[in-house]
Amino acid sequence: MLTVNDLARSDPQSAWEACRTGEWDRPTPGICQEHVQTNLVILPRSDAFDFLRFCQRNPKPCPLIEVADTGDPEPKLTAAGADLRTDLPRYRVYRAGQLVEERTDIRKLWRDDLVAFLLGCSFSFEYALLKAGVPLRHIEMGANVPMYRTSIRCTAAGKFAGPMVVSMRPIPARLVSLAVTVTAQVPEVHGTPVHVGAPDALGIADINRPDWGDALDIGSDELPVFWACGVTPQAIALEASPELMITHAPGHMFITRLTNEQIIAS
Amino acid sequence: MLTVNDLARSDPQSAWEACRTGEWDRPTPGICQEHVQTNLVILPRSDAFDFLRFCQRNPKPCPLIEVADTGDPEPKLTAAGADLRTDLPRYRVYRAGQLVEERTDIRKLWRDDLVAFLLGCSFSFEYALLKAGVPLRHIEMGANVPMYRTSIRCTAAGKFAGPMVVSMRPIPARLVSLAVTVTAQVPEVHGTPVHVGAPDALGIADINRPDWGDALDIGSDELPVFWACGVTPQAIALEASPELMITHAPGHMFITRLTNEQIIAS
Repeated sequence: MLTVNDLARSDPQSAWEACRTGEWDRPTPGICQEHVQTNLVILPRSDAFDFLRFCQRNPKPCPLIEVADTGDPEPKLTAAGADLRTDLPRYRVYRAGQLVEERTDIRKLWRDDLVAFLLGCSFSFEYALLKAGVPLRHIEMGANVPMYRTSIRCTAAGKFAGPMVVSMRPIPARLVSLAVTVTAQVPEVHGTPVHVGAPDALGIADINRPDWGDALDIGSDELPVFWACGVTPQAIALEASPELMITHAPGHMFITRLTNEQIIAS
Repeated sequence: MLTVNDLARSDPQSAWEACRTGEWDRPTPGICQEHVQTNLVILPRSDAFDFLRFCQRNPKPCPLIEVADTGDPEPKLTAAGADLRTDLPRYRVYRAGQLVEERTDIRKLWRDDLVAFLLGCSFSFEYALLKAGVPLRHIEMGANVPMYRTSIRCTAAGKFAGPMVVSMRPIPARLVSLAVTVTAQVPEVHGTPVHVGAPDALGIADINRPDWGDALDIGSDELPVFWACGVTPQAIALEASPELMITHAPGHMFITRLTNEQIIAS
């Protein structure tokens, strides 16, 4: 059986094949470490235009890496040769806003009117922070980053509307500026924090009770720093109850040909 | 009769009203100087999704300021209270890729399936350059910036495909770095140059014969610096021959509530 180590340095093509053949159906953190991983949202064309407009209006929570052509399961610009119907380890299928199944292949569900969206995820952005010397507690502890629904309303587009979800990382006070300037260099993956300190002002009642992920201790020399989170578009698409929506399963991301270095440099 | 000076410091609302009542039907450079002016492209919904995808894939030539809701002539996010059918001084109407008329009001042409796109224009970006002390020859000379069709292909989306158009500004060699760092701060309006020097490598046969605008002298201590130009999306939309396309008339831009300072700061 393949392990994370086997795929840690592999090229995207090998990871896609491992997913396609069923050799890999587990979470993607740690695999293809040099490459940008993305969230996946697939919607019918009837909803896709408003969803794209929603992403354009809310670039921090919804950083578009690619919008594939209608009916095309190959994201030609960032992952030529990949097939989004088979090349992720695990998918979730929602109908009318309800999770109906989790599967490792969506070939049978594919339709000519489906549009695939690849959205930036925090792995690339954490790569930039770690590289700059900003410690990340949830990674040190092997935990999931804590995420919170906030009182910030996203700018609506058609039926897509709702609150912004943020992720929180405790950052030493002396490194807050560095965390801001480093993430300013990666607007493709959430960019700068939306909020520093003062969780109350974000509508977070209890920082120790995240809506998703694990609670983290915040030291007396640290501040909770909040970034727009890629869970936002998925949560909002779900609330809009599209006839059909297919996403990656949490943690089971799509791997692109883009490298983390390319994203930082661009 | 109103003059540019009468409107130089006015708020957007007054300029919209002057357009609406017919008091102002001339070019907009110099009016509402603190405010962001934009290109306008209006397309039927059947073409609008691919056009939005095209803009997403080509952010330098196609910097989206706002995509209004389908059928809505009010750009609520950047110009609440405005009516895009009346509040520009002058429009051009194209049918099947042919210019059919120029008019000062498009109320009679409006339809429920039309989508209005506001795209960043170079005025804001020149404001940032001038403020940083980078001289701009075409402004000093009262000329139009020279624009060139290049050998850079935009990334296609559906029927929207074609070459990138660039604008050229001669920049003193010692200020080229400054021109890059200043425009890096305004990704909403074309961002950093796509090319510095070497016009041949861009497919420009003769720098003294621009495809649009006026030729400019380039001093021996200066380099031609090329930025992606907002003429690109319009030129490409036109080549795609949509059933209907309505744009601003050249130089007769839409004025938003956004200020140039806001764009630089964001």
